[in-house]
Amino acid sequence: MALHNKSSGLFITLEGGEGVGKSTQARLLATALSDLGHEVVLTREPGGTPGAEAIRNLLLFGKDELSWRAEIMGHMAARCDHLDGLIKPALKRGALVICDRFHDSTLAYQGYGVGKGEAKRLEFIKKARHLVDFEPHLTLLLDVPRKDALARLKERGGATDRYEGQEEAFHQRVSEGFDAIAKSDPERVHRFDALQEAGALKNELLNKIIGCVEKNSLDKT
Amino acid sequence: MALHNKSSGLFITLEGGEGVGKSTQARLLATALSDLGHEVVLTREPGGTPGAEAIRNLLLFGKDELSWRAEIMGHMAARCDHLDGLIKPALKRGALVICDRFHDSTLAYQGYGVGKGEAKRLEFIKKARHLVDFEPHLTLLLDVPRKDALARLKERGGATDRYEGQEEAFHQRVSEGFDAIAKSDPERVHRFDALQEAGALKNELLNKIIGCVEKNSLDKT
Repeated sequence: MALHNKSSGLFITLEGGEGVGKSTQARLLATALSDLGHEVVLTREPGGTPGAEAIRNLLLFGKDELSWRAEIMGHMAARCDHLDGLIKPALKRGALVICDRFHDSTLAYQGYGVGKGEAKRLEFIKKARHLVDFEPHLTLLLDVPRKDALARLKERGGATDRYEGQEEAFHQRVSEGFDAIAKSDPERVHRFDALQEAGALKNELLNKIIGCVEKNSLDKT
Repeated sequence: MALHNKSSGLFITLEGGEGVGKSTQARLLATALSDLGHEVVLTREPGGTPGAEAIRNLLLFGKDELSWRAEIMGHMAARCDHLDGLIKPALKRGALVICDRFHDSTLAYQGYGVGKGEAKRLEFIKKARHLVDFEPHLTLLLDVPRKDALARLKERGGATDRYEGQEEAFHQRVSEGFDAIAKSDPERVHRFDALQEAGALKNELLNKIIGCVEKNSLDKT
């Protein structure tokens, strides 16, 4: 799939399993990039706009379980609202949009995560993704061994949503799914060792983003 | 598009604008077909399963307006749950499923209804419909001139949802949309004069359904 957006900003997604530090890094990067003079829009999925947050609420905490196709389409509905209402207008202004989770999380959680029967789900997600028709310029995949991520999650505490509460084998499959995604699209998806200290990791991610911003500017001259 | 389902039952949809008498006819047909010994499942869209009803509620009465792509994907998400959770299992048992609104309503309301910019919406709906990949065996389009439908709606009273509350020109475009749909797929979509008395209309619809049931049985022998 090669769906490049033609906007002037840069769309950066952060991906990885639970407890790898995506939200922390997203905040650190937003601050650092703002300090460098960029307009930064920090957002997350599912959600990001009022309509998408309403769908998020239904998907993550709704009392009625949906069929797997409905769940995937629900995520895509929320994503469309997020793209149309927030991400695309921000990119058009020239902003750097940092999004905590995007298409790859749908593939990893709703596709690879299920194990048995995943092939038809992956195919369905890929078709739905094609319909949504918008890809990140750059994806930063944060990688932490599951046992370390679990220790972080225990420390954090708080309520768990539909996905966080899944069995351990599910999270193992999600992690392998992210591996497969990174291998299948090495130009867009870059992996980072997220066991290292947060500040050091932030610097690595920042370098990658700045490289991408510079390349993006050169492409336009 | 020629996506035929391979189930043994019969999937019948009722279509048309507001106030043409779809719900009344759906109930009359369900009773008549049950009396003839068929298992009948009477349902409606958006909704039909608990998960789809939750999405329906968000789409029709939610406080946050969604982008047009998100709205269409939301309808498709609800439809997937409805198909996977109710319609397909019923058809597999050999039931006659009567559904008040389906794909054609999405085309008419979210596509044709908008007027300006409808071409890209129609294209998006057609692609999403292809992804959902399930078509009715038979569609009964109930036709009432808009002024008569309006008179019926006034009589009925009650709360209006997001679509019922639209301007008159919208409903005119929806009506023309149904015309276009009927013309584009005459094998599946059959129009009926729904100004006539309810019992007489029911008999016409029933004859069409019975003809379709008999043909369906013959096709299998």
